[in-house]
Amino acid sequence: MSAANAQLFAGVDLGGTNIHGALGDASGTLLEEEKVPTCANEGQDAVLGRIASMVERMARRAGRTPEALGLGVPGLVDLESGETRFLPNLPTQWRNVPVAAILERRLKCKVRLLNDARAAALGESMFGHGREARTMVLFTLGTGVGGGIVIDGRLRLGPLGAAGEIGHICVQPDGPWCSCGSRGCLETFVSGPALTAEGVRLLASGNAPHLLEICRGDVNRVSPETLGMAAAAGDPGARAVIERAGALLGLASSGLVLALHPDIVVLGGGVAALGDLLIAPMRRALESHVHMFPVDGVRVACSRLGERAGVYGGLAVAVQGGVRPG
Amino acid sequence: MSAANAQLFAGVDLGGTNIHGALGDASGTLLEEEKVPTCANEGQDAVLGRIASMVERMARRAGRTPEALGLGVPGLVDLESGETRFLPNLPTQWRNVPVAAILERRLKCKVRLLNDARAAALGESMFGHGREARTMVLFTLGTGVGGGIVIDGRLRLGPLGAAGEIGHICVQPDGPWCSCGSRGCLETFVSGPALTAEGVRLLASGNAPHLLEICRGDVNRVSPETLGMAAAAGDPGARAVIERAGALLGLASSGLVLALHPDIVVLGGGVAALGDLLIAPMRRALESHVHMFPVDGVRVACSRLGERAGVYGGLAVAVQGGVRPG
Repeated sequence: MSAANAQLFAGVDLGGTNIHGALGDASGTLLEEEKVPTCANEGQDAVLGRIASMVERMARRAGRTPEALGLGVPGLVDLESGETRFLPNLPTQWRNVPVAAILERRLKCKVRLLNDARAAALGESMFGHGREARTMVLFTLGTGVGGGIVIDGRLRLGPLGAAGEIGHICVQPDGPWCSCGSRGCLETFVSGPALTAEGVRLLASGNAPHLLEICRGDVNRVSPETLGMAAAAGDPGARAVIERAGALLGLASSGLVLALHPDIVVLGGGVAALGDLLIAPMRRALESHVHMFPVDGVRVACSRLGERAGVYGGLAVAVQGGVRPG
Repeated sequence: MSAANAQLFAGVDLGGTNIHGALGDASGTLLEEEKVPTCANEGQDAVLGRIASMVERMARRAGRTPEALGLGVPGLVDLESGETRFLPNLPTQWRNVPVAAILERRLKCKVRLLNDARAAALGESMFGHGREARTMVLFTLGTGVGGGIVIDGRLRLGPLGAAGEIGHICVQPDGPWCSCGSRGCLETFVSGPALTAEGVRLLASGNAPHLLEICRGDVNRVSPETLGMAAAAGDPGARAVIERAGALLGLASSGLVLALHPDIVVLGGGVAALGDLLIAPMRRALESHVHMFPVDGVRVACSRLGERAGVYGGLAVAVQGGVRPG
């Protein structure tokens, strides 16, 4: 069945900065795509209106209405009711907002919510590496570090939809305080802001000539991306910062690999664009910490879905008709 | 259906010291039970003969032959062929011994093998805490530290039957060398020998008057059990040693709890007899490391099957007709 005749679904990724949406079919072929600024400080109603308008515009262009909308959101949701519980990075934190009900009323289609990282894992499982890998561990490396676990093709959610919070695995018990209230979480070392902070420190130390040049001396230009460019250009300090992040990703992964023996560990989110600079030390750490079985059978790779991981995640949620806790 | 008429199964746990076996029905009611020394240094044939004779004796007493035998072994096995791959704690390590085939020829019933800790997890799932908990993480704390993960009622095995090796989660990257070749594995802190070594150190330090008295000054009497007695009697050093083990068990568990949000974390094996001395600090560590959801919903408890965990594990394997990788 071609995409022109197949059932249509909508996938939307609600981020702190952008709303990214698409229409596609159950096989993952995208027909329409849009991205608009979230403008989260305009309030919930404005943001939900913007999501609905985007879906309506895409439906108009496609000449058809989607069967269902899957929405990935940055935080915890009630999977049954489709209410947001806590979106830490949005103003007012969206506590108990009946998002699914509001959007269903306007769009006249089923709306299902899921945490964005879990949605990305579901999307990767349906449309990305999951086509060859039944069991996967996925990290989303962005402003925060999220994750999702797929076992035998099934996303693990747990009773609250909160299983998969592997960005908060402790990798250094006396490490930096994390926004979650714990210390030394993986997130405090490998999130975008964590890498940027290390880059800023490096710039101030005077030991990163390439980074200084790439950022034209401006600390505001320090980011995982410029840090990666400096590492590639030969700054040992920049390389060391990324290698440490990769090693700690490998350390956190090693426990999950021993527990689950997955087919693949997938990296998504902006920081994953560092690619081999991050994956090589991660691989070495895995090899140093996993001796109970040959770990070379476990692949480590960047998401196949790239910047569209969130959108494909929403699409996957819509295609599945939502997910249930447990 | 009463046990007298139900199908009969045999469960055997092959340990380095003892062979422990039982006959029971699919509901976990045991009809016969036996324990004999392994005498592993007499060689594979003698040990396999001893297992077969034990099952035959129990069958004679019961007046019936079991449908199948499930055998838990201390190491890695090929689940399909029923050959042992590597039993590190037995002489000659039993590489590629066709154990299932040998026992099937003699016993005229199906024989299925499984790693002993994974078997214990399956047994706990079928006959112990699993009656209320669908998703569990189980540690077996003995000479080594093994484990098993049950997700939605299904034992996770992975392609080599080696998933669940959570005794080798790294809790201290620069920690003691482990028998597996890595460093700072949980096993190096919470196994029986690890606790005993700390107890011996404590005795030598002169800071454990109760331990000294309980052991009558003899270092050979130091064990997790005497250490637990000394802690209960008020030795702060003995208490500190056990608390550190519990805290590291909690640290290793916290990553799995974040990833899987299980209903329960179960402790089995001899060291688990320390009970609350171990569980209280473990619980505190879990609370300190897991902030993404309320961790008080995750139970921590000793195995319901106690010393029979291995036997029930074998029985569970027999009842299931074996397990498949994946």
